Amino acid sequence: MPRYALKIEYHGGPFVGWQRQTEQSSVQGAIEAALAKLEPRAHKIAAAGRTDAGVHALAQVAHCDMERDWSPFRLSEALNYHLRRVPVAIVDCAEVADDWHARFSARERRYLYRILVRRAPATHLKGLVWHVKQTLDVAAMQAGAAHLIGKHDFTTFRSTICQADSPIKTLDRLDVTHIEGSHGPEVQFDVRARSFLHNQVRSFVGTLERVGAGSWQPDQVRDALAARERGACGPVCPPTGLYLAGVGYPDDPFGSDPT
Amino acid sequence: MPRYALKIEYHGGPFVGWQRQTEQSSVQGAIEAALAKLEPRAHKIAAAGRTDAGVHALAQVAHCDMERDWSPFRLSEALNYHLRRVPVAIVDCAEVADDWHARFSARERRYLYRILVRRAPATHLKGLVWHVKQTLDVAAMQAGAAHLIGKHDFTTFRSTICQADSPIKTLDRLDVTHIEGSHGPEVQFDVRARSFLHNQVRSFVGTLERVGAGSWQPDQVRDALAARERGACGPVCPPTGLYLAGVGYPDDPFGSDPT
Repeated sequence: MPRYALKIEYHGGPFVGWQRQTEQSSVQGAIEAALAKLEPRAHKIAAAGRTDAGVHALAQVAHCDMERDWSPFRLSEALNYHLRRVPVAIVDCAEVADDWHARFSARERRYLYRILVRRAPATHLKGLVWHVKQTLDVAAMQAGAAHLIGKHDFTTFRSTICQADSPIKTLDRLDVTHIEGSHGPEVQFDVRARSFLHNQVRSFVGTLERVGAGSWQPDQVRDALAARERGACGPVCPPTGLYLAGVGYPDDPFGSDPT
Repeated sequence: MPRYALKIEYHGGPFVGWQRQTEQSSVQGAIEAALAKLEPRAHKIAAAGRTDAGVHALAQVAHCDMERDWSPFRLSEALNYHLRRVPVAIVDCAEVADDWHARFSARERRYLYRILVRRAPATHLKGLVWHVKQTLDVAAMQAGAAHLIGKHDFTTFRSTICQADSPIKTLDRLDVTHIEGSHGPEVQFDVRARSFLHNQVRSFVGTLERVGAGSWQPDQVRDALAARERGACGPVCPPTGLYLAGVGYPDDPFGSDPT
């Protein structure tokens, strides 16, 4: 059975998240249903990151096993045809080795978070950003973010329902950038690690927004981290601004972005 | 009666266009209804550009006359409150002189057109771009666009229902640029003139897309222009990728982008 890696873009709005759930609309369920149109049987696909309800992806990666030999181009075209009624698109497809695994072979997850900073409500960007009305001090947010880089016990920034064995993770990057977008100023976060705890990125961003708004001093982020206590975290920010932006593999099956 | 200039962003999708129409949802009608919540009476506002059904705006400009003295900030906040159920937002507001006119004082209109170029369907950008599946030759499109710059009789690129007195206009800019966006390659058009004929931008872009696809040679754009005949135009492209991106005034009431 040939195995294929799928690079997937989706709008998280209409879904309960990546993971299949009985009688609720999930991204995994939508893609497995499309696969069943091509080869009628139960399909079970695995993804690099299980995004929550409302979270978007620019480049989620999953793999599937097929009975027939599909050219990657034909497979992605056929899947996109059957996905045409939902905001899910296969943007790339590649054949991979039998032991390649979208989740276990991954060496890096990259997330993007977008905050739109302006008084007026969002129109085109509604559901695609977190809309914050008050000005944010990006330099203070950068100073706060610096405390989080490296290997730490991230219990503070971990959902209480997180199922990871250990709260210790290594955060490789947490860049905070001011962007002058076509809809006004944005603050964007580029967050990278080998793997993340549940709600970790949204806990970071929600806390750093408090720093940007002046409610928290940058040093309080260090104290919150050191507390190793969920109650020390700032508010978790909404899912609408979060995108799984990329997954790194030692030998990228899509032939780009090697890590 | 104090007069106010409004800078307006909107998603064109749910509207029949800018202009008020009986029993159909227009942007003008939505804003006039919001004004009537603030000062109950019939309001009539004038805009710099009357966008068609489905066309977006990043910075449409209109003006309104009020009985009360509003601070510009309070006026925009109150309007946005009453516009909260539609994708229309007042992004800036300024008090202007009694003889200032959003349409007649304007010296430049700027349009943005976005083509998303990829095989996979759009998800986040659905309704916000024109989705074209085949690769486009941007250099050829630039060569074709060069023939359109300057003062010409644009009868070829003018809708048959255009009500302008003369088909002669001066096109100041038609830049075609390849952009590597977060959803893949885009071809973006930056189009500027003092004023435009009806459907002129969409006639340009639809024709230049044919050049980019290789169906037309760049020189055929010159021939089409010289024909001064609507039948010589390429296909008019869809409204979804078009944005009124800005309006230039001799003395910008919003204190930016002077022209």
